Amino acid sequence: MFDELRVPPRILLGPGPSIANPRVLKAMTTPMLGYLDADFVEVMNDTVALIRQVYGTQNLLTFPVSGTGTAGMETALTNIIEQGDSVVVGINGYFGGRIADIAERCGAEVTPVHAEWGNIIQPEQIAEACDKVTPKLVAVVHGETSTGVLQPLEQIIDITHENGALFLADCVTSLGGQPVELDARSIDIAYSCTQKCLAGPPGLSPISFSDRAVEVIRNRKTKTQSFYLDATLLAEYWMGDSRKYHHTVSMSLIYALREALRVVIEEGLSPRYQRHERNAKALIAGAEAIGLQPAATKNHRAPMLTTLLIPDGIDDATIRKRLIQDYGIEIGGGLGIFAGKAWRIGLMGDAANEQNVLLVLNAIETLLIEFGASVDTGTAVCAAAAVYQSS
Amino acid sequence: MFDELRVPPRILLGPGPSIANPRVLKAMTTPMLGYLDADFVEVMNDTVALIRQVYGTQNLLTFPVSGTGTAGMETALTNIIEQGDSVVVGINGYFGGRIADIAERCGAEVTPVHAEWGNIIQPEQIAEACDKVTPKLVAVVHGETSTGVLQPLEQIIDITHENGALFLADCVTSLGGQPVELDARSIDIAYSCTQKCLAGPPGLSPISFSDRAVEVIRNRKTKTQSFYLDATLLAEYWMGDSRKYHHTVSMSLIYALREALRVVIEEGLSPRYQRHERNAKALIAGAEAIGLQPAATKNHRAPMLTTLLIPDGIDDATIRKRLIQDYGIEIGGGLGIFAGKAWRIGLMGDAANEQNVLLVLNAIETLLIEFGASVDTGTAVCAAAAVYQSS
Repeated sequence: MFDELRVPPRILLGPGPSIANPRVLKAMTTPMLGYLDADFVEVMNDTVALIRQVYGTQNLLTFPVSGTGTAGMETALTNIIEQGDSVVVGINGYFGGRIADIAERCGAEVTPVHAEWGNIIQPEQIAEACDKVTPKLVAVVHGETSTGVLQPLEQIIDITHENGALFLADCVTSLGGQPVELDARSIDIAYSCTQKCLAGPPGLSPISFSDRAVEVIRNRKTKTQSFYLDATLLAEYWMGDSRKYHHTVSMSLIYALREALRVVIEEGLSPRYQRHERNAKALIAGAEAIGLQPAATKNHRAPMLTTLLIPDGIDDATIRKRLIQDYGIEIGGGLGIFAGKAWRIGLMGDAANEQNVLLVLNAIETLLIEFGASVDTGTAVCAAAAVYQSS
Repeated sequence: MFDELRVPPRILLGPGPSIANPRVLKAMTTPMLGYLDADFVEVMNDTVALIRQVYGTQNLLTFPVSGTGTAGMETALTNIIEQGDSVVVGINGYFGGRIADIAERCGAEVTPVHAEWGNIIQPEQIAEACDKVTPKLVAVVHGETSTGVLQPLEQIIDITHENGALFLADCVTSLGGQPVELDARSIDIAYSCTQKCLAGPPGLSPISFSDRAVEVIRNRKTKTQSFYLDATLLAEYWMGDSRKYHHTVSMSLIYALREALRVVIEEGLSPRYQRHERNAKALIAGAEAIGLQPAATKNHRAPMLTTLLIPDGIDDATIRKRLIQDYGIEIGGGLGIFAGKAWRIGLMGDAANEQNVLLVLNAIETLLIEFGASVDTGTAVCAAAAVYQSS
């Protein structure tokens, strides 16, 4: 009744999943092992060690949550927050809003710090909020997937710590594409995903808690409201000499994550970050040449995700449908207030390369011309090529 | 620094993961699709339709939770329970205890209904509890993975409904190995996993809510405390004509689940259940012949998981270690009060076959003889063979 699975070829240049590395897909054909098999525990240990490398941390409590980036977000919040705790959340896009929503469900009194979509959260805003409420936690999104903003962290972290709070960075989009550097920056809690700049399949959320954050968890007066995401119980499975069953983790996804992280380390973190930057620069040069403006303010653009404002008179859905139909290219639509108003072009992980940049620019240019834009043929790729040839 | 992933061959006869079907592993090499790609929505729809078939339900709100069986358990409870709700939980093993723990974290007043490990929960016990507290929900474990008990459901369901409560069955171990039949039995909420009788990788939890359960969710006065597991938001992604982003599901795991369910349907549900029963019968015959007693009372044994009490003088860990070392066989140790006192032999999904039964029986017999049991060589396989030849 249901045929063998067949999927059409796609060039995934949306907000994730990105194109998974073939080595990662192959790793998923590895047979299962028991969740406490000594050989599997070794695979777990390798994976945790690799996560630490990419996060730039020695944090003991580091492991992949058995769920996607949002599960990582909820793990971070549900373990730190108790009923009535004060939490400051930077909201300059969709995912900042999601942090606030989840924090409230965890019982927090949330103080939102708003900035226009496309702008960064200013350190003074965080300082002001901290003065007002003395938060337990300050949370911001490092790479805002809805706007393409890369939030500068250093000053906000200092302000947070001066106010005695923990600092949380949502690294779902940034990890593997830009430096996160938990220890160097003193980030207390970070989580990410596997299907963006790590070029793996979705399904896990690498998370890390500093010793200070662990201390806060240890001193909770109430149980974490989620059992599935209870970091104290998860630590007993992921860490130490005598492992204790909590739930049956997904061997296949852990095999995949281990391989994805090996690929990242083989390329080298700095070269990988530079590759993301170079391709984003070319993409933006091409886009601007044909009149498409990035939503994120200059100097604060996340190279792995470029949000472009859709020109007046151009229909979002039509263009995205044609990109799929004519080119097999997926780009992302806008989220939240950007729905119908912006496109999100991801150049994440393996997909951050010259061929994809030239292809997507030429495809968009072709369609814009078809729908009435007055642009000379080849303008976009020409501008992008200039970036490649000069760097 | 970290070599290519290599895992030793294992015959997985523990509580899960079971040996994954090779077709399912292969399906995971399928490239990613966007989470709202029309072609991916088709894959989602296929998967939901197949889940409904195996569950025996027409329930609209049926989908795989992006997490393991425990995430399914938490999804079921967190969406139904509000602060102060009364919940009756049957506890005759480890996982009944876990339901009670999670229900309490969701704010429920839990009335536990205890039975000895290895015994079933008696309908009168549920009736008595319902008289006392008028619960919103009655929850029991269908196949208790810690004891190998298969709980009869019909009478308990009737009592539950007569008392105006919803009925929840934990089908983590039973689905795909024994009839679950949600609609025929009027089960309101069920969840399962992918790595036991469905012979897939772990990572998803197929869940289903009856219309009555959906109505209860719709009439909540408070938000579900988990955003990640919020069934109302998940329904907007999994159901209907206009799909709304909630989180990036794991394409790879959904591909795998679709294929695993195709394999189940191809075999046929009844033949599959009978295969599980026949092999369990042979296993138990062989085990009893060498003096190993099932922990589960007769007539209430879950064929996919046989819990055997460890004879006096035999060291649990030593035998399990030798089974791995000498035979590459994994069986499960005891959980909770059965730790060190019972073995759990799973014959789940593809692994429920004659070769595994004969192999594990002969291996255990060999080791028991080595450690002093007075058993004639070949007793176990001889008893098992008799079952195979007579049925």
